[in-house]
Amino acid sequence: MKNTPSRGIFFVLMKKIEHIGIAVKDLKLANEVFEKIFGKSHYKVEKVESEGVSTSFFQVGETKIELLEAVTKDSAIAKYIENRAEGIHHLAVEVDDIHAEMKRLKSEGFQFTRDEVFKGADNKLVCFIHPRTANGVLIELCQEIK
Amino acid sequence: MKNTPSRGIFFVLMKKIEHIGIAVKDLKLANEVFEKIFGKSHYKVEKVESEGVSTSFFQVGETKIELLEAVTKDSAIAKYIENRAEGIHHLAVEVDDIHAEMKRLKSEGFQFTRDEVFKGADNKLVCFIHPRTANGVLIELCQEIK
Repeated sequence: MKNTPSRGIFFVLMKKIEHIGIAVKDLKLANEVFEKIFGKSHYKVEKVESEGVSTSFFQVGETKIELLEAVTKDSAIAKYIENRAEGIHHLAVEVDDIHAEMKRLKSEGFQFTRDEVFKGADNKLVCFIHPRTANGVLIELCQEIK
Repeated sequence: MKNTPSRGIFFVLMKKIEHIGIAVKDLKLANEVFEKIFGKSHYKVEKVESEGVSTSFFQVGETKIELLEAVTKDSAIAKYIENRAEGIHHLAVEVDDIHAEMKRLKSEGFQFTRDEVFKGADNKLVCFIHPRTANGVLIELCQEIK
């Protein structure tokens, strides 16, 4: 596998799929569904007041499945379900240096939902590439806060 | 992490997120977008005649990103893009015994898009849990053909 020509040297920019976010109407019912599918319980529940969501997490290999239920009517998840339906909402990729990656991707022409890195769920710094510049996929970059 | 009560003993049913399928209109243009995001090229292109799609693959950690472009008008991907838009189409989980997992999930009440295991892309046996029984998420189970 080779890097894009602009990088010149090999460097792992994107380490792994950190999590996959799924918008659900009812977290309790969805937990029961995914508990059956994965054959194990969620290991954590977290409320993220700033985003107006309750979340639960399942671990599958190195990736987490994050179920997201809106707890306020104006949260992004409430709007997503209203406009579309339940389903996969975003894809999160773990990076080593989120500020450097945001800068790199902006220079490549990518747009972000917010023009800054901010604190998200699960003790992470996050930012989101806007779906209109990524084939309809909302891609989160995330870096663990140490 | 504990198993569902019905299992009784610990057993890894779902090993990892094998890939994430993204429906795109133009595979060549999408390859350029995701090459920039991941900082590396796709490593494989595969045409799956039976599904009416051309696919390309990127590796991110233990998970593949599979871009899917319809090559026939009646393929599932063509219909998906027509009805919705480009975006994340499905989530694939690797299992050790796909027939046993299908049987287990059917007994739990899950519906499948086809009532059988069949051969998919990338040298895999596959089956798909219907989104209507999994919170709007099309979940593929897959097992490598050895």
